[in-house]
Amino acid sequence: MHPAATALWRDVQRIRSKAPLVHNITNYVVMNFTANALLAAGASPVMAHAVDEVEDMVGIASALVINIGTLSQPWVESMHVALRAAKRRGIPIVLDPVGSGATRYRTETVQSLLLAASPTVIRGNASEIRSLVHAERATRGVDSAHDTEDALDAARTLARQHGCVVSVSGAVDMIVSADEVIRVSNGAPIMPKITGMGCAASALTGAFTAVNDSPLQAAAHAMALNGIAGEMAAEQSRGPGTFHGAFIDSLYLIDEGDIERRLRVNEA
Amino acid sequence: MHPAATALWRDVQRIRSKAPLVHNITNYVVMNFTANALLAAGASPVMAHAVDEVEDMVGIASALVINIGTLSQPWVESMHVALRAAKRRGIPIVLDPVGSGATRYRTETVQSLLLAASPTVIRGNASEIRSLVHAERATRGVDSAHDTEDALDAARTLARQHGCVVSVSGAVDMIVSADEVIRVSNGAPIMPKITGMGCAASALTGAFTAVNDSPLQAAAHAMALNGIAGEMAAEQSRGPGTFHGAFIDSLYLIDEGDIERRLRVNEA
Amino acid sequence: MHPAATALWRDVQRIRSKAPLVHNITNYVVMNFTANALLAAGASPVMAHAVDEVEDMVGIASALVINIGTLSQPWVESMHVALRAAKRRGIPIVLDPVGSGATRYRTETVQSLLLAASPTVIRGNASEIRSLVHAERATRGVDSAHDTEDALDAARTLARQHGCVVSVSGAVDMIVSADEVIRVSNGAPIMPKITGMGCAASALTGAFTAVNDSPLQAAAHAMALNGIAGEMAAEQSRGPGTFHGAFIDSLYLIDEGDIERRLRVNEA
Repeated sequence: MHPAATALWRDVQRIRSKAPLVHNITNYVVMNFTANALLAAGASPVMAHAVDEVEDMVGIASALVINIGTLSQPWVESMHVALRAAKRRGIPIVLDPVGSGATRYRTETVQSLLLAASPTVIRGNASEIRSLVHAERATRGVDSAHDTEDALDAARTLARQHGCVVSVSGAVDMIVSADEVIRVSNGAPIMPKITGMGCAASALTGAFTAVNDSPLQAAAHAMALNGIAGEMAAEQSRGPGTFHGAFIDSLYLIDEGDIERRLRVNEA
Repeated sequence: MHPAATALWRDVQRIRSKAPLVHNITNYVVMNFTANALLAAGASPVMAHAVDEVEDMVGIASALVINIGTLSQPWVESMHVALRAAKRRGIPIVLDPVGSGATRYRTETVQSLLLAASPTVIRGNASEIRSLVHAERATRGVDSAHDTEDALDAARTLARQHGCVVSVSGAVDMIVSADEVIRVSNGAPIMPKITGMGCAASALTGAFTAVNDSPLQAAAHAMALNGIAGEMAAEQSRGPGTFHGAFIDSLYLIDEGDIERRLRVNEA
Repeated sequence: MHPAATALWRDVQRIRSKAPLVHNITNYVVMNFTANALLAAGASPVMAHAVDEVEDMVGIASALVINIGTLSQPWVESMHVALRAAKRRGIPIVLDPVGSGATRYRTETVQSLLLAASPTVIRGNASEIRSLVHAERATRGVDSAHDTEDALDAARTLARQHGCVVSVSGAVDMIVSADEVIRVSNGAPIMPKITGMGCAASALTGAFTAVNDSPLQAAAHAMALNGIAGEMAAEQSRGPGTFHGAFIDSLYLIDEGDIERRLRVNEA
């Protein structure tokens, strides 16, 4: 078995056996899908956003995932409190800047969150990642108007500024640290037609950072698992509606053989 | 091909090719389903409700859909800001008065929203539409206690007051302007057993108004697409649970032949 | 037919024929699933949380279900108002203390809700129920770290304190009043892998309390229906994703024969 496949399968098994508690402060649209994706992958999800409890919840969590998909002021305040608590405890933090660039509020909120605490991994699409470095306006809402390669420079800049990993999702996912790049080519063309696939990838990234000390490898494993489960689901469904259930099934059923046959990392 | 079918198919293709950005301020229950329905139909959904960003989001959107299904004060304020911004930009507005009549708060909120900006299309069930004209109390929560025909007079009154189209959903959908009525008989009996079918119809109405300058035709097309996809889904599912995925699949897979065979408009 | 099966089937038919309006103040993660579960079972769900309308909504509801899964201060205030209104009207109240014990805020909120109005039924997992009596900290977030039997004493204490029924879900569900215990052994091992199964059980408990004056029997019937539908769904699905739709289908399709064949109550 290819070493990359062995490493991914080892982490999948770790998540299944340890069931790390992943604390999500995420958007309304994807909460159900995200929770089910984490459960199917073997993790234990919890959603909590009240300023009165996020610190306590971070206190028992193995990873914190912040997603600004449907942000508003009370949520942003809680995100700040949770970020600081996670930083103090030293647990991994994943930040998903959903729709950054689409409104000034989103772009500025992400900047303020990045100032509060450098995340372990930033995971977004190419337009979102670019918006964090270039002062450009997104015009496609939460969908990307760029290929992942268009975001390579921005991702590297961010990675260096924050000493973090930047995971750019797209047809080819690109996982970027200050000096390394991993490319994952798994996935299916239908995936952008289902809401929350990126958010699920961010949540899974949280689960992997909880069981793997290398943020670069953890982020790449999450994108690979997401992509492989997406391929399996695409083969078992008629369209984006039945894909939804098939994707969750695949996260649950995926085995060593699926990973060995399908994983496509750093293939030119 | 029947002219009505040709016109619907043309609009379906326009949505698929243009992917209009539909900005939804909608309820928690249906956000995921609504986003997936819009994506499957070819549109690009965005959900954003913070008063700090709705004006910016309206600024890049092709249609605004306001749905009061789980309203509260901060959301109502944002709806007002978004409505005014949409009016200034001249983009179409769809208002779904979910549960109007069930509580004074819902009824009064809808009245205040109507005062802020006349929508392009109001889409609701018969009880909701009646509640906007008659001072009657709904007793079935968000479900209708009336047939669509019971709401014809109320719909016409509203259409004249606001210079808008009123789309009344039910076993037969009735799309009403100041002086015209279109009836759409597509759909399946199981559809009221799935939450959010009406909300999806409202969101699709937003997508159609973004590609068709006739609000009457756009609203009728949305109900027809919703109904035809519902028929296809009912044939491919065992109950309301599997209907859910099959409906999204059908929105994605529907083709010219499905429309030609199934469309039932203004048939007595 | 076994008397227990006859009683359950009678209540299922009552829900289907009366379609009781169940008012839910529940969490974001499960709203869609909960609404669809209630609709599939034959009830009429409504979700409303604004302090401006909960009293009106309680005024037309047949049961109130309070679920603290994603609580925050404005929601807690509305829960208090709704609880008092439900108590005044004398409609049944179900309280689901999701994640009680995981944070002080959750534990204290549940205590304050219990002071505001004793519910008809408290439904939670073993860790949640224990947290309401013992001052112990949950470490698994919203998942249980205990077997149901570990919560028997706590459940009985609560039942006596509040003159209510306590329904503890787990591999074997335990429905406890001051002096009785019913055990329901239906269900499938995959159910903890789908988010919101407990929340659906709480909502169904609300529907059953609306048609059956015995809270003990109503709570047991809800757990039995939930468990039987879960068994049926497990047989018709490949994993937790397709289970989701199959479970809703099963709630809708379940018939007298399914109940007779499958019901397992108080079997040692």
